[in-house]
Amino acid sequence: MQNYQKLEARFRQRSRLEDLRNMSSWDESVMMPTGSGDARANSLAELGSVIQTLICAPEVGEWIEGAQLEKLDSWQQANLREIKKVYLENTAIPVELNQRLTIANMKSQAAWRELRAKNNWRDLVPLMKESLGLQREALGVLSQQFGLSIYDTALSLYSPGLNTETVERLFGDLNQFLPSLVSQVVEKQKLKPVEIPQGRFPMAAQKALGLELMQLLGYDLNRGRLDESHHPFCGGSTNDVRITTRYNESDFVSALMGVLHETGHAIYEQNRPQEWIEQPVGGACGMAIHESQSLLMEMQVSRSREFLEFAAPVIRKHLAKSVENPTSLEADNLARLVSQVEPGLIRVDADEMTYPAHVILRFEIERALLDGSLPLEDLPAVWNEKMKRSLGLSTLGNDKDGCMQDVHWPAGLWGYFPAYTFGAVIAAQLFAAARAKHPTIGQNIARGDFNLLQGWLRQTVWSKGSFLPTLELVEQASGTLSTAAFKAHIQKRYVE
Amino acid sequence: MQNYQKLEARFRQRSRLEDLRNMSSWDESVMMPTGSGDARANSLAELGSVIQTLICAPEVGEWIEGAQLEKLDSWQQANLREIKKVYLENTAIPVELNQRLTIANMKSQAAWRELRAKNNWRDLVPLMKESLGLQREALGVLSQQFGLSIYDTALSLYSPGLNTETVERLFGDLNQFLPSLVSQVVEKQKLKPVEIPQGRFPMAAQKALGLELMQLLGYDLNRGRLDESHHPFCGGSTNDVRITTRYNESDFVSALMGVLHETGHAIYEQNRPQEWIEQPVGGACGMAIHESQSLLMEMQVSRSREFLEFAAPVIRKHLAKSVENPTSLEADNLARLVSQVEPGLIRVDADEMTYPAHVILRFEIERALLDGSLPLEDLPAVWNEKMKRSLGLSTLGNDKDGCMQDVHWPAGLWGYFPAYTFGAVIAAQLFAAARAKHPTIGQNIARGDFNLLQGWLRQTVWSKGSFLPTLELVEQASGTLSTAAFKAHIQKRYVE
Repeated sequence: MQNYQKLEARFRQRSRLEDLRNMSSWDESVMMPTGSGDARANSLAELGSVIQTLICAPEVGEWIEGAQLEKLDSWQQANLREIKKVYLENTAIPVELNQRLTIANMKSQAAWRELRAKNNWRDLVPLMKESLGLQREALGVLSQQFGLSIYDTALSLYSPGLNTETVERLFGDLNQFLPSLVSQVVEKQKLKPVEIPQGRFPMAAQKALGLELMQLLGYDLNRGRLDESHHPFCGGSTNDVRITTRYNESDFVSALMGVLHETGHAIYEQNRPQEWIEQPVGGACGMAIHESQSLLMEMQVSRSREFLEFAAPVIRKHLAKSVENPTSLEADNLARLVSQVEPGLIRVDADEMTYPAHVILRFEIERALLDGSLPLEDLPAVWNEKMKRSLGLSTLGNDKDGCMQDVHWPAGLWGYFPAYTFGAVIAAQLFAAARAKHPTIGQNIARGDFNLLQGWLRQTVWSKGSFLPTLELVEQASGTLSTAAFKAHIQKRYVE
Repeated sequence: MQNYQKLEARFRQRSRLEDLRNMSSWDESVMMPTGSGDARANSLAELGSVIQTLICAPEVGEWIEGAQLEKLDSWQQANLREIKKVYLENTAIPVELNQRLTIANMKSQAAWRELRAKNNWRDLVPLMKESLGLQREALGVLSQQFGLSIYDTALSLYSPGLNTETVERLFGDLNQFLPSLVSQVVEKQKLKPVEIPQGRFPMAAQKALGLELMQLLGYDLNRGRLDESHHPFCGGSTNDVRITTRYNESDFVSALMGVLHETGHAIYEQNRPQEWIEQPVGGACGMAIHESQSLLMEMQVSRSREFLEFAAPVIRKHLAKSVENPTSLEADNLARLVSQVEPGLIRVDADEMTYPAHVILRFEIERALLDGSLPLEDLPAVWNEKMKRSLGLSTLGNDKDGCMQDVHWPAGLWGYFPAYTFGAVIAAQLFAAARAKHPTIGQNIARGDFNLLQGWLRQTVWSKGSFLPTLELVEQASGTLSTAAFKAHIQKRYVE
């Protein structure tokens, strides 16, 4: 195991240095004064190059070759597989191509920030064309190394093992039942209007409420923090997993649901397998599973009637003084409040019934953009047409709320979007499997007891790290992935 | 300049990585949850070893040799001198000795934390003996490299160019007039008792007050922050200089003076020469000059009658609602409040008249400990005797408030203490020189206008970085260093 052990030592170094990079990113988003941006960017670039040198060193390639002949147990084998993947991702693409791609992505992302505000699609096209072309080239190189199609390669960069065939199958299923249900549910909800809580809800009270509930869900405040930032996120480093939110003093629900969503991400990170925590195999499995954990806590648990049964008194404890219409804080009303359905243009504001339409549209478009069958120039028209067909909304002349709304493509994140909806589908299936195994989970949640759920997730998901690829992890935990549980969940929450 | 340029590139890398180390230390003191300590320590050790490898690489020694033959301008020469110093400090001491010293210091510092609370000097002795012996060895190696005596080497590690002869001369001067004045001033102050502000002063109001005054003194909030921590400090990184304080809601004066003290440190760091900011010569000159900048802002400016003339209305703006005895917030009373003199056992609580006695005692003792003429076992007795002679106080049987009160020696910081009193003496001399050059500085301060003072400091101190060693910097700015200005300051503020 000599070669393998050298790899472990090298990747332990990497993990420890990556932690500083991650802490520094957290600081940049949460604490850093604006005038320090240049110096910080220089520091991060320097650290990045130190890490790159460690990982891409020729001896790492030799150790990988050697380790493949050594006697390794199953976790060591999985770790070697993950190490090899990191090594290939960092060395396969020629340095010069990689640099051009990085610069092109930075330029188109920077332009996007300005041009989106101006609804100016035309000027973004040449920049995105440049970065898309280079991205295609880079994905081409990786796809040969991994023996995958270009789009499967893109998918796998974010969710290991996810493939076009499965995406098509699941998205096809969703398309069959969701669109027709949406209008039905919208009509149904009109019959019983929801009462919006009115009042000024002080940030400090909202924060205390968030802290109480996130700890009950399983968040360890001894190895994390809750702060504020412009865009809520989960970040930090090994055994120091921090989340952020943004408070709106006239609407506590959005920050609260945001906190509980990020809590799902954070609990997953806090419960990675300690014995592998500094190795690639000890890392989270990928974005689809990560999103499944946040959506399980947010969509499956926190927006459920059972949870709100328990949470309503806690919410009243913190906010009763601030609310003008106390009945709005009763469990029944809260449950309706957090399950309102309404088709809209913006993905990040979408509810769980209309969210998949946003993702499916992006999936179809990014495949066509990557394989060249859709020219970038035609994107606004195609977007508008697909939005009309799926959600009945037009984005004609409104590209800023249409094809320019997301940072992903301008930033070069092609193949990322499906992870969001896979997260939702996986969350439903995992939660259903947990309830099948422990039928009292629902009652327990209504009492504020999350132990059974946490225990099941720890065993089937959290402790696995990257030992299994996405679909195998789901399969071992809950059977082959399908949309059945998600469909049942939608049916139960919105239709019955 | 080929070799010199390689050195600049290497030390630029060092600076950028050091910035991450410094940000991480700030985070550890201000933000980090307690459960993350181990992971963070691992990350910092890894980064430390990366930096060490960069700096101690054999090629660095060769580049230094080569650069000495190259044509360099005066700043480049000074930078090369500083680079060489860093290189020697990091490579001259044999690796094994350095490791033993680091471990011995960590052990005696850890033991000190426990044993001080228990007033247990006896059990600390063997640990400090071990670290002191190794320190003597390490200083011996460096002293040969630098061509200095052992104690001058220790002094120079913290304040470049400071030497025993100057310390003896200045401390001798201080000893001649301070002790007799102290009792005289204490008696005089009894005649006109001070009114202590009573009330509960909310943290938020104290913070707003601190932020307003620190920005007026010249602090750039666009490249820094004000936060809270257990021990107030100035930290952060290049163009991101952050200070902390600790609030006491029944006493706003201590936090305010603490903030203004740290502001002095921070303004110095924020105004280092930008064109050299990533090079050793662009760093602060050393601890004596650093302390002179904090004490200039705190002792010379903020505790002055002129400043309080201006600050009293600002203080009332923030705290009038909270104070029970409004007359206590008048400039006259505030000026007396912040210039109370009282001999005490604890250095960090001492006023500016009794502070030098604490430092002189430590200077005499650490010299004798380092040259072996005083055995560690005799320290408590000698301490008690010197405290009785200088401030009339006994520490017999009270080592925790005597020779065990400071972390410096247990942590291996020998030769550091004189910098505190040199800071006070230099601050007085610089401030006097600034006022001699610009006679309206006093009136301006009374109006809240700090431009003249800032301009003079920028030109004579801040922009110099480490271009000159300590005493030369003072000399060029204000003439040969003496205690005359400090003496005049004490005379004017306390005696007249």
